[in-house]
Amino acid sequence: MVTALVLEEKGKLSLRDFPLDQSLGPADVRIAIRTVGVCGSDVHYYTHGKIGPFVVKEPMVLGHEAAGVVLETGSDVRNLKVGDRVCMEPGIPDPTSRASKLGIYNVDPAVRFWATPPVHGCLTPEVIHPAAFTYRLPDQVSFADGAMVEPFAIGMQSALRARIQPGDIAVVTGAGPIGMMTALAALAGGCAKVIVADLAQPKLDIIGAYAGIETVNIRQRPAAEVVAEATNGWGADVVFECSGAAPAILGLPALARPGGALVLVGMPVEPVPVDIVGMQAKELRVETVFRYANIYDRAIALIAAGKVDLKPLISATVPFADSIAAFDRAVEARETDVKIQISMPAD
Amino acid sequence: MVTALVLEEKGKLSLRDFPLDQSLGPADVRIAIRTVGVCGSDVHYYTHGKIGPFVVKEPMVLGHEAAGVVLETGSDVRNLKVGDRVCMEPGIPDPTSRASKLGIYNVDPAVRFWATPPVHGCLTPEVIHPAAFTYRLPDQVSFADGAMVEPFAIGMQSALRARIQPGDIAVVTGAGPIGMMTALAALAGGCAKVIVADLAQPKLDIIGAYAGIETVNIRQRPAAEVVAEATNGWGADVVFECSGAAPAILGLPALARPGGALVLVGMPVEPVPVDIVGMQAKELRVETVFRYANIYDRAIALIAAGKVDLKPLISATVPFADSIAAFDRAVEARETDVKIQISMPAD
Amino acid sequence: MVTALVLEEKGKLSLRDFPLDQSLGPADVRIAIRTVGVCGSDVHYYTHGKIGPFVVKEPMVLGHEAAGVVLETGSDVRNLKVGDRVCMEPGIPDPTSRASKLGIYNVDPAVRFWATPPVHGCLTPEVIHPAAFTYRLPDQVSFADGAMVEPFAIGMQSALRARIQPGDIAVVTGAGPIGMMTALAALAGGCAKVIVADLAQPKLDIIGAYAGIETVNIRQRPAAEVVAEATNGWGADVVFECSGAAPAILGLPALARPGGALVLVGMPVEPVPVDIVGMQAKELRVETVFRYANIYDRAIALIAAGKVDLKPLISATVPFADSIAAFDRAVEARETDVKIQISMPAD
Amino acid sequence: MVTALVLEEKGKLSLRDFPLDQSLGPADVRIAIRTVGVCGSDVHYYTHGKIGPFVVKEPMVLGHEAAGVVLETGSDVRNLKVGDRVCMEPGIPDPTSRASKLGIYNVDPAVRFWATPPVHGCLTPEVIHPAAFTYRLPDQVSFADGAMVEPFAIGMQSALRARIQPGDIAVVTGAGPIGMMTALAALAGGCAKVIVADLAQPKLDIIGAYAGIETVNIRQRPAAEVVAEATNGWGADVVFECSGAAPAILGLPALARPGGALVLVGMPVEPVPVDIVGMQAKELRVETVFRYANIYDRAIALIAAGKVDLKPLISATVPFADSIAAFDRAVEARETDVKIQISMPAD
Repeated sequence: MVTALVLEEKGKLSLRDFPLDQSLGPADVRIAIRTVGVCGSDVHYYTHGKIGPFVVKEPMVLGHEAAGVVLETGSDVRNLKVGDRVCMEPGIPDPTSRASKLGIYNVDPAVRFWATPPVHGCLTPEVIHPAAFTYRLPDQVSFADGAMVEPFAIGMQSALRARIQPGDIAVVTGAGPIGMMTALAALAGGCAKVIVADLAQPKLDIIGAYAGIETVNIRQRPAAEVVAEATNGWGADVVFECSGAAPAILGLPALARPGGALVLVGMPVEPVPVDIVGMQAKELRVETVFRYANIYDRAIALIAAGKVDLKPLISATVPFADSIAAFDRAVEARETDVKIQISMPAD
Repeated sequence: MVTALVLEEKGKLSLRDFPLDQSLGPADVRIAIRTVGVCGSDVHYYTHGKIGPFVVKEPMVLGHEAAGVVLETGSDVRNLKVGDRVCMEPGIPDPTSRASKLGIYNVDPAVRFWATPPVHGCLTPEVIHPAAFTYRLPDQVSFADGAMVEPFAIGMQSALRARIQPGDIAVVTGAGPIGMMTALAALAGGCAKVIVADLAQPKLDIIGAYAGIETVNIRQRPAAEVVAEATNGWGADVVFECSGAAPAILGLPALARPGGALVLVGMPVEPVPVDIVGMQAKELRVETVFRYANIYDRAIALIAAGKVDLKPLISATVPFADSIAAFDRAVEARETDVKIQISMPAD
Repeated sequence: MVTALVLEEKGKLSLRDFPLDQSLGPADVRIAIRTVGVCGSDVHYYTHGKIGPFVVKEPMVLGHEAAGVVLETGSDVRNLKVGDRVCMEPGIPDPTSRASKLGIYNVDPAVRFWATPPVHGCLTPEVIHPAAFTYRLPDQVSFADGAMVEPFAIGMQSALRARIQPGDIAVVTGAGPIGMMTALAALAGGCAKVIVADLAQPKLDIIGAYAGIETVNIRQRPAAEVVAEATNGWGADVVFECSGAAPAILGLPALARPGGALVLVGMPVEPVPVDIVGMQAKELRVETVFRYANIYDRAIALIAAGKVDLKPLISATVPFADSIAAFDRAVEARETDVKIQISMPAD
Repeated sequence: MVTALVLEEKGKLSLRDFPLDQSLGPADVRIAIRTVGVCGSDVHYYTHGKIGPFVVKEPMVLGHEAAGVVLETGSDVRNLKVGDRVCMEPGIPDPTSRASKLGIYNVDPAVRFWATPPVHGCLTPEVIHPAAFTYRLPDQVSFADGAMVEPFAIGMQSALRARIQPGDIAVVTGAGPIGMMTALAALAGGCAKVIVADLAQPKLDIIGAYAGIETVNIRQRPAAEVVAEATNGWGADVVFECSGAAPAILGLPALARPGGALVLVGMPVEPVPVDIVGMQAKELRVETVFRYANIYDRAIALIAAGKVDLKPLISATVPFADSIAAFDRAVEARETDVKIQISMPAD
């Protein structure tokens, strides 16, 4: 029995003893969790009890953005040793599935993903994880940074799918946490400039503080106008849609240059109207994004190199004992907070 | 003054003398037209007087799918000589525009395209055309084949944008002329099998007569079921949407494999609902298609090699003198005809 | 103890009882071998006792191109059942290695490959193999075809790395078994024409019998001249180097078009001079090939669809009891034979 | 007659009146030159009288790295106006050639390139240039920066051909001007780290002063050892070969990761031995680079955004009147200087 933050049912959290399988396989490592970020999906399960087809039917441990320290290694593990500071990919695929063999293990239908029913998450002092999906953190990357790798990985996946060419001009529609991560990944990934559009000024102020980011409050000015001005009427090379909002999606073709790319990151809850002819007239390429694969190494490398600084996005750090309060704050402060992290006591 | 098939206004065609500029520039060739295919867009201008923003305001010569013989070459022309049998790209870009410099001259906003208002088409005995967009036909490619290169080029552009890998399984939704061209291009382009779905059985019978094509009448059976069966539940590598129909577009994600590609060829008249989350869950890549660029050489090469046989798609050949009747037939026989061609008298 | 064809040491083969591990893991299948092709590498180990760093130090079972029937399935196997006709990928990677996670398991340094010292091959009546690397053969694909999938997969890998665009013109230098496989894969993969160059006329006659293949005997005429003629002086879109011969490699830039691709398949025994400036002047892309990954499904699909016919490349089929004679023939008849297969007695 | 720096013959420069065609076509602009960089190729023509097949047979004006101000625009010019500060692509292709239509106008055999015999360069107060190959400089980009765009464009072309993914680790072999430009382009283009290897310490000190660049003096330590250490034995994602030196080229496979890329930028004077099997064992992709196409806009964007600072690479600025002395310095100080610029008097 271990202590864990348990979502008992929709709207009800407990911090209590919980029976988790803690047996160590030969390819696994045992990890002392140090920092866990609170994700919008954790909060959504708390407030709604489900996300699409995934429904919380039994008590479930939350949390999937984590960093920690290796406590024990399985007999076959070669890439890690006790004491290594690490962060973990929360999705574990079947490594010999057809998708995994292709290198796209993120879309393996068999993936088991932390804190996605019925799989338990990592808001608990110790977890068992496959060494192959556990990544060593260099000294200059803190546990707080390490727990940011997971959400940043989505931004990175978006940047990779975009196939940015050095000197591209990009647009991000939607300045939520994922939009911010995507903007920073696009900038680190070679864009000369990233224009971020939203209607929430506090979020725009946070992301607009980064060099290379230009913001536009679409309550005041249409994004298309700003993009046309910045690109001399040509359009952006890449547009990342991170809002999931129907009007933003309908307006995408106007933002892109002929032959440009749209990357659909935001997830609208149901089918929304798309201007297909508008896309065709510029022969746009459209990429979609689902989590990430083969991203952690390169995300960590960019953070370690100082090319991306995620610290300004951490709004608060709360002790594990106050986890439930942290979740309640996350529910209430969605307009102003970017990321709340929960820290575990180090022995 | 030359004779031409003129769309005087919506619903009214004349075969009459018409003043066309016939002056030969140094980089141009003069071509005797031999065969012209009737395209759905020609018919649409005839029946509706417009396509989207393109409105017929003045009398306009129709026709843009043409083959002929070089009669005269401009002083700078090196790639062609008098007597060459040729076919022509109907779109003429600004060759130094930003899009053209990138090699995507099809999306150059400055393109002038035959029989797209206010640009006149080629249903007239002689035309002037830039040599750079005029392509020599090998002996084994007839004028009838040559006039099929233009619609086949759209299928080829779709196949190239798909980035087919040898042995892919593809689906085509919509068995109109462009759907058929796309299916044949996908097959010639390396697909092991192409499944064509439509609800018009006569069209399915025509395309289903080709080896390598499997058809499904969606009145009888859902396309997704047939695709699942053919791919052992995995899904198609590439899905070409050629119907422009809203239900087909909504159902696309179910047809594709994880990591597969959707190619949007059909043009729905207005924005239609798209299942973005369904695309994301498989992390699909979506390509859009607008005409073609750098396709004619390779389309001609495949026809010349016998890897594609377009003759079965020619429903009828009508003399130029009977052009108006040909158009009236094209309006009436849309369910059974694929392509009607108009032949010019050779001197 | 099972009977096996054992390479005792350089130059010495035995057909004898041999102790092979026949234990079935939960993710494995037990397979009755029916047909095994003799590969140049098998023959090379026989005649030289080594290939590069791989040296035969202990008796080793030969054979890696195999098809058979599933006899038994491990407890976790879902994709196969007893009685399935199958062929097998001979290389088994570590599925959670860094390379495997990227989808390029062929370059995983940990790969264990049949009949590559110290790993035993499959010239024995029964083998154990991971189900994830065992592929079901459709009814229309014979065991003989199934045993050809392995060498064809190298041609397919070459075709995929080339990123063929429909209608490309390709050249293959070297008409050995791999050159032939590559030519057929390129043709099935969308090339309009493949020009095969070699100096051995018997090989050229075999491959030249396929539609779409043009041959050039370089004793009689330079390949560059034939390519220039076939492409109107522009050059080939893709050149596959399958000879490993220094003069062929030095002459590659002359065969390709500006912006074209070279695919290096042949393996010269030591570093050879390359005309780098010649490549740069056309800004050629150069791809290299090492075995294959994620190819078997698509190779089988093309064979099943009848888009590739490998039967004309099978020079002889020899019973297992005569395996040693088969190898001796393979040593002697390299100029005229393409592929010798060994057939196992079916019970 | 205009004043120009004229290479009369090998080893002999004059600053004298020279008859250059100054007629303005409708698509041209007249430009007052302000700054011209001295390139290694200019110096090579001076010292050797030829580069490969290009031989100086008549007096030729030198210079091709230039920035200036628009003085007059042709009647069809829309993208520029008098007074615009600009830099120019020195290569002018045939815009309707087969290569140009594909977007790879850099490999158009018909390109006319400044200061490549028999085409005159731009070391003269006024030049005529096609507006389509003339690029406006934003206010924050100086003439000195503008004249650096040309050499930086080669680094950028290398970075684009590499298809860098955000967070890649890159190696550059050779720290000459092009090696430095490539390293900076790779860094701006998304690499987390770039390791530059050379044996000239002064050059390494200059490039090593940039954040994100690590240097290795190969007189002291093998590059492969440093790369292995930096990548935990995996190898670099991309290796840019910028030395043209035979030993560096032979050692390339050891520096790259499985599935990585080599980009051949340096131009060895004759064919050199390449370890093809070493490349195949990791299935490396090899790209070659020839000048650049469609790069200027993005290069200028990165400089304007401050993501690349080229000023530290300008070793000296010399007035036009002292051009011959500038060339003599460039000959002598190759070990320590990176770039010498010549400035024109502004009226």
